[in-house]
Parts: sequence; C-alpha cells; structure tokens
Amino acid sequence: MKLHKLVRPYLVKSGHNFRLKDYDPADTHDLKSEDKAESKAWLENGISRLVELQDIFGADCSWGLLIILQGPDAAGKDGTIKHVMSGVNPQGVDVYSFKTPTPEENAHDFLWRTNRVLPTRGKINIFNRSYYEEVLIVRVHPKFLEQQHIPKSARGKELWQQRYRDICNAEEYLFHNRIIVRKFFLNISKEEQKRRFIARLDDPGKNWKFSAGDLEERQYWEDYQDAYEKMIRHTSTDYAPWTIVPADNKWFARLLVVATINDTLERLKLRYPELTDTQRAELKAARKKLLKS
Amino acid sequence: MKLHKLVRPYLVKSGHNFRLKDYDPADTHDLKSEDKAESKAWLENGISRLVELQDIFGADCSWGLLIILQGPDAAGKDGTIKHVMSGVNPQGVDVYSFKTPTPEENAHDFLWRTNRVLPTRGKINIFNRSYYEEVLIVRVHPKFLEQQHIPKSARGKELWQQRYRDICNAEEYLFHNRIIVRKFFLNISKEEQKRRFIARLDDPGKNWKFSAGDLEERQYWEDYQDAYEKMIRHTSTDYAPWTIVPADNKWFARLLVVATINDTLERLKLRYPELTDTQRAELKAARKKLLKS
Repeated sequence: MKLHKLVRPYLVKSGHNFRLKDYDPADTHDLKSEDKAESKAWLENGISRLVELQDIFGADCSWGLLIILQGPDAAGKDGTIKHVMSGVNPQGVDVYSFKTPTPEENAHDFLWRTNRVLPTRGKINIFNRSYYEEVLIVRVHPKFLEQQHIPKSARGKELWQQRYRDICNAEEYLFHNRIIVRKFFLNISKEEQKRRFIARLDDPGKNWKFSAGDLEERQYWEDYQDAYEKMIRHTSTDYAPWTIVPADNKWFARLLVVATINDTLERLKLRYPELTDTQRAELKAARKKLLKS
Repeated sequence: MKLHKLVRPYLVKSGHNFRLKDYDPADTHDLKSEDKAESKAWLENGISRLVELQDIFGADCSWGLLIILQGPDAAGKDGTIKHVMSGVNPQGVDVYSFKTPTPEENAHDFLWRTNRVLPTRGKINIFNRSYYEEVLIVRVHPKFLEQQHIPKSARGKELWQQRYRDICNAEEYLFHNRIIVRKFFLNISKEEQKRRFIARLDDPGKNWKFSAGDLEERQYWEDYQDAYEKMIRHTSTDYAPWTIVPADNKWFARLLVVATINDTLERLKLRYPELTDTQRAELKAARKKLLKS
C-alpha cells in the first residue's frame, strides 16, 4: 500500500468550495475491515515506521511538528493519540489538551495558551483540541466572547473572518520557522456518536468518559457541522492542510492518521546527521584516549 | 502644549519612503532646554497624567498595551523606562528585557519568548528590546541564524521580508485581540553615543554600564542604521506605528515617550466602569447589612 495514495483523498490544501457532506464518515478508502488481522498489521507497520521516522526527526533537529486533533465528542481524539503514538519515544512527543480556558487565559490574546507550548525543532507536539476551539465552540456559543473582554460591537461576522486569517498567518509564520502544522478533523456521524455515548452509559468501564455536557452539546450538532465546515474552508492551506478523517471506523481513522504523519515526515527526506571529517577525527581521538585511561 | 501636536511629527504609520537621515537625533521640536525647570515640569505633568490614565486603563480592563523600546547601546532605553514609568502603579506594569537568547529559546520559533509574556487586557507591558532584534542584530550578524537551526539555503534576502511580514501579521492579530502595540526607536547620534560611552568609562558610578561588547558593536554602526531604517520602513503600520524618538537630549526623549503613551491612552476614551442599577442596589444592601452586623 502506497502511503500517499491513501493520504491524498482526505487532504484539503485549499478550502475553496469545501463541503463537509462530500465526505462520508464511514468511508474506508478501498480497504475492508473484514480481515481484522490485516488491518491490525497495517496499523502496526505504520506505527513501526513512525517510530523510525521520529527518531531521525529528533536527531536531525531542524524541523518541529505540530499535530492538531479536532472533532466532536466521542470522535476518537484520545483513542487516536493513545493508539497511534504509544510506541513512539515519549521524549520526542508532548501532548497538550485544551479545556475550558482559565480566567488568566481569557485575559490574554486567544493564541497565548497554545503559543506557550509550541514544539521546538526536533519535537512532535500534539494538541488535543486547540486554538481552533475559538472558531468552533466560541462560534456556536458566542456568549464566551464576553469572557474574552470583546465588546458587543466587535462580535459581528467579521470577527470570525479575522480569526481565520489570523490563524492562517500564525501557521504560515510557524512554517517559516520550520514548525510544520498538520491538522486532523475526526469526522464522526451523528448516529455513530449516539452509539458511542450509549456504550459509555452501558459499560461501567466506560462510564467515566461520559459527561452530561456532551449531551447538551449534541443538541447543537448542526451548528457545529456548520462551524467545522467554515473552519476547514477558511484555514486549509498548502503549508497547514486539514485531513478529513472518516472516524466512524476507529481502525481506519487511526490508520489514516499514522499514514498522514508518516507521509509528512517522509517528505522531509531527513537523515541522521553526518559527521564532518574533523568530527570523525575527534571521535577517533576520544576513543584512543578512553582506551588508554 | 497640545499632546498630539508634539506626538505627530515623530509618529510613522506608514514606512513607505522612510529615511532615517530625515530625522535629527538632536531635534527638540520647538522646545528649548534652556529653561530646565520648565522641561522638568512638562515631564512631571506628563507622568501625573499617565498615572491617572493607567489607573482607568487597569479598571476598564478591555485593552492591553505593549510598549517596545529599541535603539543602539546607550540610547537611553533603561533610563526612559526608569524615568517615565516610575510613578505608575507597578501592579499594572511589567517590564521584560530580552538579551541573548537561550538554547531553549533558539530551538523555538522566534516569537516564542516574547509571546509568552504579552500583556493581558488591563496591563501595560514594556519590552526593553524585543522580537525586533530578529531583524536587527541577527540581520547585522547572520551567523546567529545558525543557532536558530535555519539552514544556509534559507538565509537569503527573502528571510527578512518574511520576518517583517510575520511581525506585522502578529501585531495586527494583537490589535484584533485588543492588545495595542506602540514602538519607540531611540534615535541617538554616533557622536552622542561616544560621549555617553566615555562618561561610562570615566565615572566610577557608571562603570558597570559599560561592556566591551558595546564597543565591538559600534563598529557596525552603519549596518545597524541600515537595519533600523529597513525595520521601520517595513513594520510601520496604522495599528502598530513606530515613534522616532530624537534621543540625543534625554529630557526631550522622555517627554516624547510619555506624551505618545498618554496620547495613545487618551484616544481610547476610557472611563471607570459604571455600575448598573442592580449593582448599585446590591452595594446599598451590602452597606446596610454591614452596619447591622
């Protein structure tokens, strides 16, 4: 299976005319899940390659990678992080989850809390939710703008256009600084979310995952779909594309995420740093000295 | 003396055709320094008004203010901060000095270290040097790009254009977030710098201010003048203008800085928050309760 052949159909580099309903949440490319063993092997192969690539990425230290996961409740953000990144050297990966902003965070510009924890070069940072919440939950519930000290007069339509543009500019700036941004929208269907919520209610081992607030937000499903579509339309760029991940099948979602990350890293054509002749001579001398000591 | 009449000639809102040599470092507008007592009174009046304005600014809490000071060694950055801001409530003002970046700072995007300490709304933060060093000392000595992990192939002329644009975008984003940016270039002449360096060498009480590195950098005077001019040309905007402060006369430099800050704050037309009728009734009830207790 060629990586880029799997990756490309779901990669949105230009949001012009993007419509969410053109993407089927249950899509699995031309892969069948019948053969469970095979889909598991695909994922394992992908993760093994990611482990290798991350090691070179960390040694090379000239690029950073920011992975952003967005999607409705129960779309599989936590599960994707767990299953895709578990084999990777944790020294090279940091995960940050962004929940309800604190008063201090609200007193700052909206990128402040995420800007503080951007990856250094050589590192992969994962944002479980991100500054995109500023054009999602805040757009669906504009009352949150009040806590951001934004007066009523400035809460019009142009505010969202400003935020899209400011986010694109910030991501382009990061690209100039050799921090690559890759964004994943976990596209789950309303029916599948219902199934997963019920599983969380029925299975005592999953109870802790359920919160009453999730059901509350489910009432705004259509508003969120609209906000996701607009977000993808206005913030898909060459330097920071969105991947629309069909998320009704967990195995496929995970496979696509790992394939997209690997494809991104492969394209950098990185190699372990090569030593100069002088450095090589120094190592030789050090070895000699150690043996004599 | 009308504030905006003093402020306007030195305010650059568009850098188009800007030439540094059009600005005289010894200029004092139409003010004479002969009358020392008078110039002192002007400054004291300015500071008193700043103290009032900052108090309202902090109570209103809907805007933040970022003040950036740039200029050659001995141009008076520290002295300006000391004399202009000393009377102001320190709870509302934070000062950050940016020296040689640490390895951790160099591993991040170049705005990382300043983004972390941006003002909240209601606060005035002062940057003594700033991210503008990235197009000043780094432009004069491109070897520093190596520590930023930027490969030789990406160190061409377009890198500086990118940085100017990225900085403007970041400042526009801050404006959208109600953080106002005001930038001061302390424009000292080469001769006045020499005089101040000699004073630092001759006066034991000022010895600590002198470092051998200052003399080193003085050799690059023309390169720095060129870098300052290009910086002002490319990053002067309506939302984040530069003020070219004639800095050969300390008394005038300080007066112009305080006048510019005051003019900025006056234009916001802020007032202490007014209570609603309900809030007023609550206060009345609280008073009654306290008296009875």
